[in-house]
Amino acid sequence: MKKITLQIHCNDQPGIIAAVTSFIANNSGNIVYIDQHVDSEQNIFFMRLESEFTSFSITTFKANFKSVLVKKFNMKWRVYDAEDQPKMAVFVSKYEHCLYDILGRYSSGELNVKIPFIISNHNDLKPIAERFNIPFYHIPVTKATKAEAEIQQLQLCEKYAIDFIVLARYMQIVSSKIINKFPNKIINIHHSFLPAFVGAKPYHSAYKRGVKIIGATSHYVTEALDAGPIIEQDVARVSHTHAIKDLIAKGRDLEKIVLSTAIKQHIGRKVMVFNNKTVIFS
Amino acid sequence: MKKITLQIHCNDQPGIIAAVTSFIANNSGNIVYIDQHVDSEQNIFFMRLESEFTSFSITTFKANFKSVLVKKFNMKWRVYDAEDQPKMAVFVSKYEHCLYDILGRYSSGELNVKIPFIISNHNDLKPIAERFNIPFYHIPVTKATKAEAEIQQLQLCEKYAIDFIVLARYMQIVSSKIINKFPNKIINIHHSFLPAFVGAKPYHSAYKRGVKIIGATSHYVTEALDAGPIIEQDVARVSHTHAIKDLIAKGRDLEKIVLSTAIKQHIGRKVMVFNNKTVIFS
Amino acid sequence: MKKITLQIHCNDQPGIIAAVTSFIANNSGNIVYIDQHVDSEQNIFFMRLESEFTSFSITTFKANFKSVLVKKFNMKWRVYDAEDQPKMAVFVSKYEHCLYDILGRYSSGELNVKIPFIISNHNDLKPIAERFNIPFYHIPVTKATKAEAEIQQLQLCEKYAIDFIVLARYMQIVSSKIINKFPNKIINIHHSFLPAFVGAKPYHSAYKRGVKIIGATSHYVTEALDAGPIIEQDVARVSHTHAIKDLIAKGRDLEKIVLSTAIKQHIGRKVMVFNNKTVIFS
Amino acid sequence: MKKITLQIHCNDQPGIIAAVTSFIANNSGNIVYIDQHVDSEQNIFFMRLESEFTSFSITTFKANFKSVLVKKFNMKWRVYDAEDQPKMAVFVSKYEHCLYDILGRYSSGELNVKIPFIISNHNDLKPIAERFNIPFYHIPVTKATKAEAEIQQLQLCEKYAIDFIVLARYMQIVSSKIINKFPNKIINIHHSFLPAFVGAKPYHSAYKRGVKIIGATSHYVTEALDAGPIIEQDVARVSHTHAIKDLIAKGRDLEKIVLSTAIKQHIGRKVMVFNNKTVIFS
Repeated sequence: MKKITLQIHCNDQPGIIAAVTSFIANNSGNIVYIDQHVDSEQNIFFMRLESEFTSFSITTFKANFKSVLVKKFNMKWRVYDAEDQPKMAVFVSKYEHCLYDILGRYSSGELNVKIPFIISNHNDLKPIAERFNIPFYHIPVTKATKAEAEIQQLQLCEKYAIDFIVLARYMQIVSSKIINKFPNKIINIHHSFLPAFVGAKPYHSAYKRGVKIIGATSHYVTEALDAGPIIEQDVARVSHTHAIKDLIAKGRDLEKIVLSTAIKQHIGRKVMVFNNKTVIFS
Repeated sequence: MKKITLQIHCNDQPGIIAAVTSFIANNSGNIVYIDQHVDSEQNIFFMRLESEFTSFSITTFKANFKSVLVKKFNMKWRVYDAEDQPKMAVFVSKYEHCLYDILGRYSSGELNVKIPFIISNHNDLKPIAERFNIPFYHIPVTKATKAEAEIQQLQLCEKYAIDFIVLARYMQIVSSKIINKFPNKIINIHHSFLPAFVGAKPYHSAYKRGVKIIGATSHYVTEALDAGPIIEQDVARVSHTHAIKDLIAKGRDLEKIVLSTAIKQHIGRKVMVFNNKTVIFS
Repeated sequence: MKKITLQIHCNDQPGIIAAVTSFIANNSGNIVYIDQHVDSEQNIFFMRLESEFTSFSITTFKANFKSVLVKKFNMKWRVYDAEDQPKMAVFVSKYEHCLYDILGRYSSGELNVKIPFIISNHNDLKPIAERFNIPFYHIPVTKATKAEAEIQQLQLCEKYAIDFIVLARYMQIVSSKIINKFPNKIINIHHSFLPAFVGAKPYHSAYKRGVKIIGATSHYVTEALDAGPIIEQDVARVSHTHAIKDLIAKGRDLEKIVLSTAIKQHIGRKVMVFNNKTVIFS
Repeated sequence: MKKITLQIHCNDQPGIIAAVTSFIANNSGNIVYIDQHVDSEQNIFFMRLESEFTSFSITTFKANFKSVLVKKFNMKWRVYDAEDQPKMAVFVSKYEHCLYDILGRYSSGELNVKIPFIISNHNDLKPIAERFNIPFYHIPVTKATKAEAEIQQLQLCEKYAIDFIVLARYMQIVSSKIINKFPNKIINIHHSFLPAFVGAKPYHSAYKRGVKIIGATSHYVTEALDAGPIIEQDVARVSHTHAIKDLIAKGRDLEKIVLSTAIKQHIGRKVMVFNNKTVIFS
């Protein structure tokens, strides 16, 4: 039994669902999940579908799908083998809460992913990586060495065939050199309810503004700072009794849950990106 | 241009989506919304579909749908004309917050519904009904008169061809005589986070138990008290600083929003009920 | 029995609480509520206190309080007679949901306030005012007439001895002429999670940004647009399935609850403003 | 500089706050936190106070406090040295998410506590304990051996002078023998929004009931199952799309955050228990 996940988007037009579901049926597939979304403003149709096949050749499937459907509807599409575990690189700096949360879930089998290595610009979190038996690469980053450091980072990603990168409170701005290699494949956690408080020290800004609710946002990294497609957000109530250190402490819990939720959605191939926004299938 | 909403459920089996979407396409319909859900435990398939037709006869559609699809898949199904405004009866007692919320939304066109009348076992809220120019029937209910009162209530519902009933903090238990006439068509608001605090005085019970969060629940009325299919729930944080009267005040805001949300979902034909649970389409 | 509410702030220094509570005890008062807050960054002490007195003269109390405490601690202070109902003016434009919510609560006695009149730059909501028997003044506002219109607004406020103003989706920017007369006494509702999406059309901006949570913010009006002290905020989850009109509909429920909550806190003398932030006592 | 935390409760009566704050001032203490609460139903006064002293003897303080205040107001009271790190035992079974969350926070210094050991009735989580270098005791529990096992557990608690116990998804009912030794000092996490779904398999019950929101509850253990004083609760939205395994996965995130929040409140001496309810100071 082979299970695949299919993601499609194209201009909205009559007959797509019938055509795709008939195609699956004609190829002896059993649909176990299907959902679709129409962005009526842009007139774009999105579909996510999971199907099981008793006998299956990915090559044949791709060829047939292409000749029968892709041309007719001018589709953008991707097909994933459910057994393929994506490879995820983790970048950190000095904060450990997101890293602990990711590694705890990873160790208990909650994340269907491989983590070949952790990269950090500092050595502080090396003991945590060791605790979980994951290779740790210390690649310091200064203004002068940043370009060189990114080359090293990319070499590691290539060597281990990394599929996507998670910035788990990695306190550096990633340059377009890396972003272009991993378009909509770098997941960041920003410690505010974006688009409020872009940039550095958002808890300080939130405190100063006197907000009654703080948040955290996980998004794909694009070249515009903290402006990429949002995957997940969550919030918590605060009050005048919370000093900045209390906002930071509350925020840690938001950050780690929001980031891990975004990672799970990405791993589950539940996210589609269009026009700097995400469609998140259930 | 005619717009319809279709609700279907049947045993899950291959080919349903392809068959239904092809049927719509073959009848020159344009699907503007489609969503489906499979209850894998019960193996039941649910679908909600909105479609537009330039030329349309409901009689022909129903006949064709029946002969082509219903038998083949052994479907339970309903089709609604989007122009048909359902007729909603409102039952109240003495609390006005839910009534005000419903009537404010009704007057501003937020609810696509007709409200032919309001029934109450007390006269207290009559001035509100008058303010909004809605007929108000005072039908007192005592142990002795309850059977007779329910006959009067049902006569009014029949006379005005009522489609569904909203109990907007109607403090009486509705008997099976009414429930059987309106199965999954009586919407109640219970002032707790069900199944916690079933029955009378839930805020008192919540206070006594020392919960840190209170809630409200809207559900369809069945013969088992406060145990019908849940449509909508919401919650609010409370603390030791809240006395019972504060819980009641906070709860009012929850109750009115939760009830009105449930009403909107019902009016929009977004709710399907199966096995004492609801599927709520988006 | 006379009940008062006391608000104090001053530089934090040892002995304030002991001094104030002793003062109340020495004047035969019974403290029924006391809470305090220290802003450690600014070193400011805030206190809110409710006390009952069997025999009481406000003049004597004020004189004593001043001579015993105010000078010693260099306090800013206010004392309110709990029986005094503040007078609240409501400004609206064309959206009715906040107005209905306010008037429903007002009519059912939930708001301990008087509403002498409603002002609008349009005539649309006049029937609602009439329904609730509240005088309605239609004062159109154009660029050319704005200065004159604000004079009329202020004259009405003076005539009726208005204590504070609520902008219930009043779609005009209020000038400093009015703001200066009502410092921290004009409550606005902004239909976003401030400081995100300041200014016009926040739901359109939220849709475009692809946020997963929307919000509403009630704040005191200052000369900087949407930048005054925040009183209350709340949020709701949204997803890619929500079109702009859905965000607007969800937002209406947030707006009315957030605004009414802020109004209740203001009426209850629970809000203290310092440094463009609020302290909200329970 | 010595810092203490003081917790007091007694019948509410005039002059307590003045008396306590004057006492601190007279002993050259600087109050850095004070909050109080009156349960008006029970007429009980609660206070939590933090104070700094330049010169301080705990013995003298206790003796003075007792002679000056305790007798006069018939107080129940506790004083804690802020430097004393409480000793916390962790009991687990097979689920690792709460344990990972606790140990991650512990390792990063987020919890001001000592963890002398972990006890489990299974060996599954031993590798996690080893990873964090914490002694792990495997004490199997069967019906036949339960009494003996609890004796071993208590011996370990005595040996290490344990202050309180955390049941981090420990799937056993703790008997009164242990509860009586640790009254309001055993913190449990229950995987439902109590009082809904007491007992085993709450996610299955929640699924069956079709709730739209699930929750988790942390409470002190008393002899009545899942009925002890609630410390913290939180909730998450679910829908018909969530199967039981999805509820369990969502619930894990709630459970670990709720439990760790409760632990932090307990460690911070912010919780007071009265009448099977908690007062949680900020």
